[in-house]
Amino acid sequence: MDLSQASQVAYDVLELVGTAAFAASGALLAVRRGYDVVGITVLACATGFGGGMARDVLLGDVPPVAFTDLRYLAVAVATAAVIVVWHPPPVLTRYPLNFADAIGLGLFCVTGAVKAWQFGLGPVPATLLGLTTAIGGGMIRDILGGRSPSVLRDDEEIYAVPALLGAATTAVLLYLDLFTVVTGTLAALGAIGLRLLALR
Amino acid sequence: MDLSQASQVAYDVLELVGTAAFAASGALLAVRRGYDVVGITVLACATGFGGGMARDVLLGDVPPVAFTDLRYLAVAVATAAVIVVWHPPPVLTRYPLNFADAIGLGLFCVTGAVKAWQFGLGPVPATLLGLTTAIGGGMIRDILGGRSPSVLRDDEEIYAVPALLGAATTAVLLYLDLFTVVTGTLAALGAIGLRLLALR
Amino acid sequence: MDLSQASQVAYDVLELVGTAAFAASGALLAVRRGYDVVGITVLACATGFGGGMARDVLLGDVPPVAFTDLRYLAVAVATAAVIVVWHPPPVLTRYPLNFADAIGLGLFCVTGAVKAWQFGLGPVPATLLGLTTAIGGGMIRDILGGRSPSVLRDDEEIYAVPALLGAATTAVLLYLDLFTVVTGTLAALGAIGLRLLALR
Repeated sequence: MDLSQASQVAYDVLELVGTAAFAASGALLAVRRGYDVVGITVLACATGFGGGMARDVLLGDVPPVAFTDLRYLAVAVATAAVIVVWHPPPVLTRYPLNFADAIGLGLFCVTGAVKAWQFGLGPVPATLLGLTTAIGGGMIRDILGGRSPSVLRDDEEIYAVPALLGAATTAVLLYLDLFTVVTGTLAALGAIGLRLLALR
Repeated sequence: MDLSQASQVAYDVLELVGTAAFAASGALLAVRRGYDVVGITVLACATGFGGGMARDVLLGDVPPVAFTDLRYLAVAVATAAVIVVWHPPPVLTRYPLNFADAIGLGLFCVTGAVKAWQFGLGPVPATLLGLTTAIGGGMIRDILGGRSPSVLRDDEEIYAVPALLGAATTAVLLYLDLFTVVTGTLAALGAIGLRLLALR
Repeated sequence: MDLSQASQVAYDVLELVGTAAFAASGALLAVRRGYDVVGITVLACATGFGGGMARDVLLGDVPPVAFTDLRYLAVAVATAAVIVVWHPPPVLTRYPLNFADAIGLGLFCVTGAVKAWQFGLGPVPATLLGLTTAIGGGMIRDILGGRSPSVLRDDEEIYAVPALLGAATTAVLLYLDLFTVVTGTLAALGAIGLRLLALR
């Protein structure tokens, strides 16, 4: 399935905003850990690119788009630069980190499922790949940053579930030929909202 | 090399039992860590799929079979559900975890080597890939679960060795055209037995 | 772009020396952690192969050369054997580990960028892939060995930068058609030297 031009633009926007969001969460964990500017940039890129790279490698779309489409690099480095300049006190990074992570989670579960669908996967595999895309970047961030992955922590009860629901909704919409810019964005917003509610 | 139909059935059985075994080990580590039902399911799937996904990505067989053949997902989720219902006391998870891990290790070293051979690799590369398949899922489990990987721990002296021997035996059997359902199963049982002996 | 025969030999030398260097760093971390001979060998191979495997998977060159070209395995296992025999006191491993890591870092940033260029990537993606190749093995080593990755640690200020500069220099040399055995080696030595200066 090819996306219409409008859908392609929307897809790119979701991808790049998601990359910025995950990059911000990586940069904020780096700030909390006291890393220097290089460490902040590296963790921002690894988190911003990680989920999409895993998705692309699993789909055989290599080199991953994060390496070949330089907008991804620009977005991740610019986000890291903003965090370096802002540099919040480490104790105040918790909520911004979780907020940015929720946005990335909600956007990537949709784009991951869409890309898997474009590569010919059925609804269930596309859901799984959307979930993998959504939780992959955060897993890499948490492992590199030396903390237990959010997706597993017992104080983070609803992390994988919003991503799974967002990816499954996307796959069902694609299956029913109801996926549009509007419904896709709503699926992402639903996943983000559910995750943010769980953070309260 | 194509497997005969009987061998293909045997291969699928070894793969799915191995997936269940590793999924159980991941779910049990999650129980020991106090994770909730989502964390148990995620760690079960990551452990059950991890070694095979690494193998498939390294062979270029993407998307990995764990994403496209839904029996893998069904087996891993069902195994996680059994552990969730059983939910042993965390202090009693150690032996079941190691037992399940030994079964997965012995089965995956054989299937990994077989699949590598089917993709045209020679005996030594097939052995290496069998070893990677066998130890990959447990490595991912241990990293995500925040413990030192079994394959490296100094109190786990014989972990990689049974997997290496099982994979090498499989590769030699394939090279000598002696690989059958029986000899392959014996290679797996030998690796499992050696690992279980080391656990005493 | 095909490399000339002389360049190909030089490329292979840089790759295999880099593999030995990273394998030594992995083996030394294993010694420091008190791992046995199997753990030392596994961590040596994982570190020696890790960066190049990530590069090859990201480029779609699978199975990775570390699995199919047995010189890589021979070099990594031989290096592990040397460390097993030497077996320095754990407290004395710090400088040799960092020294070996610096050599691997400097060599792999060049070979990673060259291989990416050969696969048709432009200068910026080739730089990124060179950086990934250079820092990948050490990241895997540190994660498996249970320590914070060097590339992120706040007491390791100049780790990613030499690799980035070495990869970028290589990409520019390739872009300007000035890449030769000599200039490539100089780029590697420059990266190694910069990293070693940072260790003082």
